[in-house]
Amino acid sequence: MGFQIGTLASHSALGILAGARAEGFETVLYCPSEKRRKVYDVFNAADQTIMLKKGYHELLEVYTDNVILIPHGSFVSYLPLEEFLSAPLRMFGTRKLLQWESNRKLKSELMLEANLLVPSETFDPQNANFPCIVKYHGAKGGKDFFVAKDEKELEQNLTDEPALIQQFISGVKVYATYFHSLMRDRLEIFGTDIRYESSIDAKLNFDETPGFTIVGNIPTILRESLLEDFLTMGEDFCKAVKTKLGAEMVGPFCLEAIVDSDLNIWTFEFSGRIVAGTNIFIPNSPYSYLQFGHEMWMGRRIALEIKEAIESNKIHQVCV
Amino acid sequence: MGFQIGTLASHSALGILAGARAEGFETVLYCPSEKRRKVYDVFNAADQTIMLKKGYHELLEVYTDNVILIPHGSFVSYLPLEEFLSAPLRMFGTRKLLQWESNRKLKSELMLEANLLVPSETFDPQNANFPCIVKYHGAKGGKDFFVAKDEKELEQNLTDEPALIQQFISGVKVYATYFHSLMRDRLEIFGTDIRYESSIDAKLNFDETPGFTIVGNIPTILRESLLEDFLTMGEDFCKAVKTKLGAEMVGPFCLEAIVDSDLNIWTFEFSGRIVAGTNIFIPNSPYSYLQFGHEMWMGRRIALEIKEAIESNKIHQVCV
Amino acid sequence: MGFQIGTLASHSALGILAGARAEGFETVLYCPSEKRRKVYDVFNAADQTIMLKKGYHELLEVYTDNVILIPHGSFVSYLPLEEFLSAPLRMFGTRKLLQWESNRKLKSELMLEANLLVPSETFDPQNANFPCIVKYHGAKGGKDFFVAKDEKELEQNLTDEPALIQQFISGVKVYATYFHSLMRDRLEIFGTDIRYESSIDAKLNFDETPGFTIVGNIPTILRESLLEDFLTMGEDFCKAVKTKLGAEMVGPFCLEAIVDSDLNIWTFEFSGRIVAGTNIFIPNSPYSYLQFGHEMWMGRRIALEIKEAIESNKIHQVCV
Repeated sequence: MGFQIGTLASHSALGILAGARAEGFETVLYCPSEKRRKVYDVFNAADQTIMLKKGYHELLEVYTDNVILIPHGSFVSYLPLEEFLSAPLRMFGTRKLLQWESNRKLKSELMLEANLLVPSETFDPQNANFPCIVKYHGAKGGKDFFVAKDEKELEQNLTDEPALIQQFISGVKVYATYFHSLMRDRLEIFGTDIRYESSIDAKLNFDETPGFTIVGNIPTILRESLLEDFLTMGEDFCKAVKTKLGAEMVGPFCLEAIVDSDLNIWTFEFSGRIVAGTNIFIPNSPYSYLQFGHEMWMGRRIALEIKEAIESNKIHQVCV
Repeated sequence: MGFQIGTLASHSALGILAGARAEGFETVLYCPSEKRRKVYDVFNAADQTIMLKKGYHELLEVYTDNVILIPHGSFVSYLPLEEFLSAPLRMFGTRKLLQWESNRKLKSELMLEANLLVPSETFDPQNANFPCIVKYHGAKGGKDFFVAKDEKELEQNLTDEPALIQQFISGVKVYATYFHSLMRDRLEIFGTDIRYESSIDAKLNFDETPGFTIVGNIPTILRESLLEDFLTMGEDFCKAVKTKLGAEMVGPFCLEAIVDSDLNIWTFEFSGRIVAGTNIFIPNSPYSYLQFGHEMWMGRRIALEIKEAIESNKIHQVCV
Repeated sequence: MGFQIGTLASHSALGILAGARAEGFETVLYCPSEKRRKVYDVFNAADQTIMLKKGYHELLEVYTDNVILIPHGSFVSYLPLEEFLSAPLRMFGTRKLLQWESNRKLKSELMLEANLLVPSETFDPQNANFPCIVKYHGAKGGKDFFVAKDEKELEQNLTDEPALIQQFISGVKVYATYFHSLMRDRLEIFGTDIRYESSIDAKLNFDETPGFTIVGNIPTILRESLLEDFLTMGEDFCKAVKTKLGAEMVGPFCLEAIVDSDLNIWTFEFSGRIVAGTNIFIPNSPYSYLQFGHEMWMGRRIALEIKEAIESNKIHQVCV
C-alpha cells in the first residue's frame, strides 16, 4: 500500500504493531534504548527498528513521510507537545485532542461540554471538597497523585506545584474504551478494564499515602444495562470534540470513570487515543468478538480503519 | 429449523443472541426503550427487534409461539413472576426454578437439600449471628444489601421491610457457573468470576455503609484441586432440583460462594439460569475451551443444547 | 512418537494434558482418588488414567519409561522430594531446581545470585524488619502465612516451627511467568497474573489474621514499559540457575513479585516449573498470542518444546 505503520516502543506498541501486521502493513518501531529493544525483539514486533539515541524527541528528526504514526500515552508524556503537534507527521487520530488531554483546564472544559457527570474540580485548595484527590500536570502513570480526606491531610501533602484538586468519589474504577470509526460511521464500544495501581490496590497496605502508580490492567465487563449510559457518554464525547475542536473524533478514546453504588457514572479523565488498558484484550475483548466475530484487538482495529481509509482514498480523514 | 431464539434487552442478551446466531438460529430482541435499542443496534445483535412500549411485562402480550425465550436475571427482577411463570411461553430451562430463586425461603430450602455449606440465616434480628449481611427480597443487582458487624449496626440500618439476615463469611467471592446438559447427559463447569460491586470493591472508601451494587464482573480461575468440591456441589444441586421441584435441572446455573482461608466453600446464593458473570467469558472461558476446543460462551452453549434437542425431537425436555 | 505425556491430577493438569493433545501426544493422568477422577473425566482430559491408591507417592511405582512427566506445584508439595528427585523418572524441566524451590535457604540464595531485588529475610525473629510476613516450609498454597506489623504481633502468632521472616512490601502482586526455550534459544514472557487469596483478598474482612490461602488466579497485563525490567529479571534468573545448579533452565518458571509505588519490583518467591496462574490464560495470554499468533497456553507450550526436542533428537536436553 505504500504506507508503513509505526509507533514508539512503549505503552501499547506490541498490540499496535501486531495489529498493523494482521492487516497487512509493514511496521516500524522507534526505540529509545537497547534494553527496550530487546523486549520488542523477543516478540519479533517490528519489521524495522529505528533507534532514538537522543531520546523520544528524536522521532521528529528520523520520521519519514511514508509512516503513519499511532500515538499512545508515551507520546503525550514524553514528547515536547507543541513541537510535536505542529510537526509534519502523518499521525492517526485527532491530533489536537492530545493537547486537550494534556491540559487540565482544557480537559475539564471538554468533559463538561460532553455533559459528562464530573467530580467538582478546583485549582484552589480553599475551594476543595473533601475527600479529594490531588493531581499534578501531565499523564505520567498516576505517580504523585494523592488522596486527602480533610483539610489537614491536604495541607500536609500539597507542594507548591500547581495541582488540580478533584472531588474523590467512592466507587469502583471502570475505564471504558471506544472506537469512533469514520469509515464505518459508527461508535464501537471496545472494552472495559480496571487499572491496577500501586500501592492503592495492595491488599495490605502500610504506606502512609498510598500511590496511584499504574502497574497494569485487569479485564472487566460491564453490567449490560450500563452499556446504554456508557454509549451515550461516548456519543456525547464525540460531539463535544467536534464542537470544541472543530474536528471529528477519530479512532480510539477512553473515558475513565468511577461508578458509585447508585450506578452514577462519574468521569474524571479521558484519553484521546489508544489506552494501555486495551492490552489485556489481545486478541479479543468480549465486545470486540461480539462485533467482529474474530480476533480484533485495538491495535488491529486501528490498522483496519487505516486500511479502509486508504482503500477509499480517505487517509486524510483519519490523520487529522 | 422453524424456531427463533429471543430474549429481553438486558443482562446477558448480547451473548445469548450472538450464541444463537453462531448455532444457526434467527434471533429476536424484546427491547424496553429506544435508548436501550441503540446498544443492541451497535452490536447488530438481533435479526428482529420488538419494542416493549409498556415495559418488560409487555413481553407476555407480544410473544409468539415460534420463539424460544432464554430467561436471564432481568426476567427474574422485572417481570411479574406468577403471571410470567404460568404464561404459555416456550422458555429454555427449568422454569419453576426461577420461583425458587426469587423466594428467600425456597432458595434456602433448596440449598440445604443440596447439602451445600450455607451461612446461617434468619428473618429475625434477634437471632442474627455477627457479622451479618442483610438482604431484602428480589435480585435487583445487590443494591440495598448491607453488612453489620454487631447488633448496634444492624439496628441502625434495618428498615421495616422483611429482610434475610445472613451470617457474613470472611473470604473471597467465587461465582461458579455450570451447564447441565440433558442432551449430552453431563454436568459441565463453565467458569468462575468475581462480581465487581460498588462501593464495596472500591479501594479507598469513604462511604459510611458500602453498597453491593453490581457494576460488572472480573474473570478468575479456580485452584484446580477445588474443582472436585465445586463439581460435587453442582451435582448435588442438580439432584436437589429434581427432588424438590420434580423436574430436571436444565442448562446454566450458578452457585455464588465465599471461599474462606481453610478452603471451606460457603454457598450463599444460587441463580437458576444464565448469570451475567458469563459475559466476561466471550468467546471462551478456560474451562469451555478445554471442553470444546473452540469458541464456546454460555449464550452459544444454550443454543447448542437447543439445537441438539430440536434435532433429536426433544425440545420439550429443555423447555420445562 | 513413542512418548506419552503424563502428570498428577491437580494444579495445572487440565492445561498440561490438553496442551499435550494439541501437539499430538497421548496423555496419562495419575490420579489419587475417584472423586478427583470425576473432574478430569468431565473434561475428558486424559487418554489413560492410572489410579494412585496409596497416594501421590505411588507415582514412583507405577511410572513407566515411555512417559514424560510434567512436574507442577503438587509434585513439589506432596511427593517425598529426595526420593522423587533421584528416581529414574523422565521428567520435563530442570529437576534439581525443584529442590531449590522447596528449600527456603537455597531459594533465597538463587534469587540473590540472580541479582533480584528481594525483601530482607531472616530466620531469627530478633532480626525481623517490620512489617513482615512469616512463612513456614513448603509450598502448600500459602496457608499459614501471616503478616505482623510489629514485634508484638510477631510474637503472638509465631509457633515453634522454623519460619522465614520476610520484610513485607506495600505494593501490588504480580506473578510473571516465563518460558525458557532451548529448542528456539530464547526466553519468552508468557503472562502475568494476580493470585486470589483468602481471606486477604476479601473486600470486607473480619478475620483477626487474614490468611494467604490460594483460591484462584486473576489475569492482568503489565504496563508495557515494565517489560524490560521483567525480561532482564528472567534472563538473570536463567543465568543464576546455570551458575548455581550447573544446568540449563528448561521450560516454564515464575517470578513472584510485588511492585511498589516507585515501580521497584521486589521478587519474594520463584517457582521452577509451571504455575497455576497460567491456567487463566487458556487458550491464550495476550503475550502468547502476540508471540505465536494462535492458541498457545502453557501446557501446550511445554508439549511443543518436547515435540521439537524429540524431532531434533534432543529429548535429554529438556528432561534434565
